[in-house]
Amino acid sequence: MALQNKPVLHGYFRSSCSWRVRIALALKGIEYDQVPVNLIKDGGQQVTDQYKTLNPMQQVPALVIDGITLLQSLAIIQYIEETRPGPKLLPSDPHARAQVRMISDLIASGIQPLQNLHVLQKIGEEKVQWAQYFILRGFEALEPLLKQTAGKFCVGDEISMADLCLVPQVYNAERFKVDVSQFPTIERLNQTLTEIEAFKVSHPSCQPDTPADLRT
Amino acid sequence: MALQNKPVLHGYFRSSCSWRVRIALALKGIEYDQVPVNLIKDGGQQVTDQYKTLNPMQQVPALVIDGITLLQSLAIIQYIEETRPGPKLLPSDPHARAQVRMISDLIASGIQPLQNLHVLQKIGEEKVQWAQYFILRGFEALEPLLKQTAGKFCVGDEISMADLCLVPQVYNAERFKVDVSQFPTIERLNQTLTEIEAFKVSHPSCQPDTPADLRT
Repeated sequence: MALQNKPVLHGYFRSSCSWRVRIALALKGIEYDQVPVNLIKDGGQQVTDQYKTLNPMQQVPALVIDGITLLQSLAIIQYIEETRPGPKLLPSDPHARAQVRMISDLIASGIQPLQNLHVLQKIGEEKVQWAQYFILRGFEALEPLLKQTAGKFCVGDEISMADLCLVPQVYNAERFKVDVSQFPTIERLNQTLTEIEAFKVSHPSCQPDTPADLRT
Repeated sequence: MALQNKPVLHGYFRSSCSWRVRIALALKGIEYDQVPVNLIKDGGQQVTDQYKTLNPMQQVPALVIDGITLLQSLAIIQYIEETRPGPKLLPSDPHARAQVRMISDLIASGIQPLQNLHVLQKIGEEKVQWAQYFILRGFEALEPLLKQTAGKFCVGDEISMADLCLVPQVYNAERFKVDVSQFPTIERLNQTLTEIEAFKVSHPSCQPDTPADLRT
């Protein structure tokens, strides 16, 4: 029998989409190796031919697992969910599963893509206001939805993929100086979640590629 | 036993995310009612308090089904998949499922959000160039991925959620005068798919809210 290689995560410490996957791997207790892709240095390592072969979208993360390369954080997380034991990242009830995916997609399609690095580079000097606008707009929708779905976590009382999306998005909001305290449900969920070990060990402040001055 | 009400789709004829859901409903043979939400007229019906109660994100589609309101097209499609019989929209093999989700998310998170109506309104006079840039960038990534995954359809030889994302995105590309012929796999898949009845009956050119001059 061939040795099972550890999955390899190509990511960036501060990428919120990479962080989503790191949380999933941590919750499932999956050991993995990290290959940092510096999105800033020398114009970004994601634009090299080598990385484009791995991910033609020139984005992180990419996860090499079970001999295949997977792209797109939510597709990766659901692959892990469907192939690995450990805590469930989606509930079994179809309605609750739909709520988890709805909140995950609202963040992953409705907020994050509008404030990611490449878009902000295109926007230029008004990039901070642009990012704030779309994060605020997204959180104004997310808050009433979470009020309906949340228990201890985003959907009910079990951690789910939605929580893996929420915490990195709140981290981005804080980086862009959005006042999260105006969204009490988001703030409460974030506080609860960031106390959990899997969210701590995967935090941007303590990854292999975190610069020394950003380590805590 | 209570009468099962038909699902109600709140959408817009030309919204690519609404079209994704219409294809899913057609493939599954689910009868539904449509409530048009005109995204343009009078500043957009999606910004009214009435619609915001249904979808605080002020976007279409929203599907009222089984007594609940679902938002986000891919969450809706996967709910339909998990609760309704009929042709499978995701394959059973985990690797193929991941490929379907990867392609779906590349479009739903990586392309569509950057060329949706609200973003283009924010961009202003350079909106056409902006939309073209992000559609081209996305298709340049999609083409080599589809070359690896496609058979007759986006992933292998069965229709999947990825196909439901591809066709409406190609329609958007054409609206923005992107030359799709430079992406032979995308073009071939689109040609095959648009011949299928479920894609035809759900087409923006023949919905209840399609204006007379755009009907074909």
